[in-house]
Amino acid sequence: MKKLAILGSTGSVGTQALDVVRKVPGFSVEALLCKVNTSLFLEQVREFSPKYICVTDEKAFDEVRQNIGGDIQIFNDPEELISHIDVDLVFNCIVGSAGLKPTLRAIEKGMDIALANKETLVCAGKLVMERVTERGVNIIPVDSEHSAIFQCLQGSLRSDLEKIHLTCSGGPFRTLPREKFADITIANALAHPKWSMGRKISIDSATLMNKGLEMIEAKWLFDIDMDDINVIIHPESIIHSAVEFRDGSIIAQLGTPDMRGPLAYAMTWPGRAAFDIKKLNFFEFNQLNFEKPRYENFPALNLCKEAMRIGGTMPALLNAANEAAVECFLGGMIKFIDIPVIIEKAMAAYTYKANYDLDDILEADAFGKQYVYEVVKCR
Amino acid sequence: MKKLAILGSTGSVGTQALDVVRKVPGFSVEALLCKVNTSLFLEQVREFSPKYICVTDEKAFDEVRQNIGGDIQIFNDPEELISHIDVDLVFNCIVGSAGLKPTLRAIEKGMDIALANKETLVCAGKLVMERVTERGVNIIPVDSEHSAIFQCLQGSLRSDLEKIHLTCSGGPFRTLPREKFADITIANALAHPKWSMGRKISIDSATLMNKGLEMIEAKWLFDIDMDDINVIIHPESIIHSAVEFRDGSIIAQLGTPDMRGPLAYAMTWPGRAAFDIKKLNFFEFNQLNFEKPRYENFPALNLCKEAMRIGGTMPALLNAANEAAVECFLGGMIKFIDIPVIIEKAMAAYTYKANYDLDDILEADAFGKQYVYEVVKCR
Repeated sequence: MKKLAILGSTGSVGTQALDVVRKVPGFSVEALLCKVNTSLFLEQVREFSPKYICVTDEKAFDEVRQNIGGDIQIFNDPEELISHIDVDLVFNCIVGSAGLKPTLRAIEKGMDIALANKETLVCAGKLVMERVTERGVNIIPVDSEHSAIFQCLQGSLRSDLEKIHLTCSGGPFRTLPREKFADITIANALAHPKWSMGRKISIDSATLMNKGLEMIEAKWLFDIDMDDINVIIHPESIIHSAVEFRDGSIIAQLGTPDMRGPLAYAMTWPGRAAFDIKKLNFFEFNQLNFEKPRYENFPALNLCKEAMRIGGTMPALLNAANEAAVECFLGGMIKFIDIPVIIEKAMAAYTYKANYDLDDILEADAFGKQYVYEVVKCR
Repeated sequence: MKKLAILGSTGSVGTQALDVVRKVPGFSVEALLCKVNTSLFLEQVREFSPKYICVTDEKAFDEVRQNIGGDIQIFNDPEELISHIDVDLVFNCIVGSAGLKPTLRAIEKGMDIALANKETLVCAGKLVMERVTERGVNIIPVDSEHSAIFQCLQGSLRSDLEKIHLTCSGGPFRTLPREKFADITIANALAHPKWSMGRKISIDSATLMNKGLEMIEAKWLFDIDMDDINVIIHPESIIHSAVEFRDGSIIAQLGTPDMRGPLAYAMTWPGRAAFDIKKLNFFEFNQLNFEKPRYENFPALNLCKEAMRIGGTMPALLNAANEAAVECFLGGMIKFIDIPVIIEKAMAAYTYKANYDLDDILEADAFGKQYVYEVVKCR
């Protein structure tokens, strides 16, 4: 039995990870963590019988505590949870920069990480990867794109990798004329054409901020220059990404759009397992298309490149400003086209630090969010 | 320095292998073999200074012998050449069933094989793979499709492989209406839309016999059932083939159509080398298409499946009948549509052996060729 901890178990990725546990034998759930969704969480606790659980929202914590048996240890601090567990693989499916500290604590304890929380690397890639190397742990990506790249790199030498082709569905506004961006509603932006995902990542996919953050994530995961990451709009979402070696050979990973594929791979790597995933049929999809991104309609991509060019704590600031801006958009307080404008303003207002520790990252994070909340209130 | 022998050095594949040697440092050519093209062969001998050479045509042998220095050992029997050399990798780029004996001799001597001669496995796959396992040598395929599959399988477990997707350009007659097949000329059939190849393999690509033979080759190389090999018509020839694992994940290899890619990979495996190969540009090809093969227009595919279903020496018979039929077609003695008809007749006229040794394979080969020559003469 391989022991798992699943942080963020009631979210879109967390519930799918648990579905894989249900269907692929050989895994036990030692620990679960959620924020507020107590009813689903209690169901999960009953079904998977974890020994350790964590509920980060105070009110939800009290509710869960009253409804579990005495043999389960309950915490409200993710780092405390991590301190108490000893598992083979920690799934970090927490949304946003809140995922950073638990990741670092798990690495410190020498546990492998299945990383769905891209903010961990976006905010503190250098710091995290240094600690990963020091402790000799594995980070197995579970974003579909990064899992694809990770799969394509199996059995290859790092020195042969020349380029990463990061595919992108283009989101719901791929073909929308520029003048119509001003009228985008929340419902429009949440309607992703290919993937069923959480609300925050759905908006990030609509602005292409998600792809920009993925570029940063790929940069750190695979030790590659931002300039060697080629974003390709591929509306069919069949090729999940590809790598190019110095001999011109490209290895690509394809599959149906189902997050459980990357999640299962993280669990079974370097092996694989059969389960009820829909298989791809080349004759059904029939045709694959590839386009350049329309950078002028999706400024988020260049904002990410710019944040990485500046480096230091700037990507953490960008990520925080984006988180807050998305929250404001979902709250109906700003328009869709305001999201990148506000992020750019936050970047301009911020004095970054070239060298950083965890506190500097948290400070950048706080500054970015605070800045956006203030700007939005003042509008 | 990694030592190479290149058998069939004046052919299309052989000359491209030498071009890779020219451009990728770290390889020395110890041995060269050709059949009749003495002028090119003598140039190659001067350029690459092999210690051992072999010329299988008698007249050509005499001519070459008179034009080389005394420090080069010359043979006219491929097996004798193999007996004298000790190299790291033998490129077998010989056309047809003549490639079988040298392969077996090289395996016996424990040398790794870069295999361009698909007839080796088509005729005697069971025998060859048993000896490969016994001697612990590596067979590295250099057909673009099999190299693609080999690349896609790096770092994976055999038990996870579920299916092979073998791509096929469709050849020059992919969309030709059935009633026009009777009018196909030699020039039509030699004009392959994507790959620059030798004459025999160009015809095999036009009949799709090449794809059928590749199915058989893949079956033996990758230890997979014929039914788990899915032929996909992919006219752009960008995806060179793919593998599907039991978790539904598909890994594909892509590149420009340049045989030097697979040839270089065979030399540098498991690493890779940079050279003057044209890189793929996703935005240039723009679109990829996939179709089912039109089995009714290309009977060769089903003939190959049937020969493998029967097993034993039948695939060797099929291969021999095809070689002779292609020769007759290129000699203007039969029509394009007669090729599969004659092969089917040869299969019907032949009593196969379920268990075989090398002599049985050579007998099947002789029978198949003889049968076709006689049928064609009688027409």
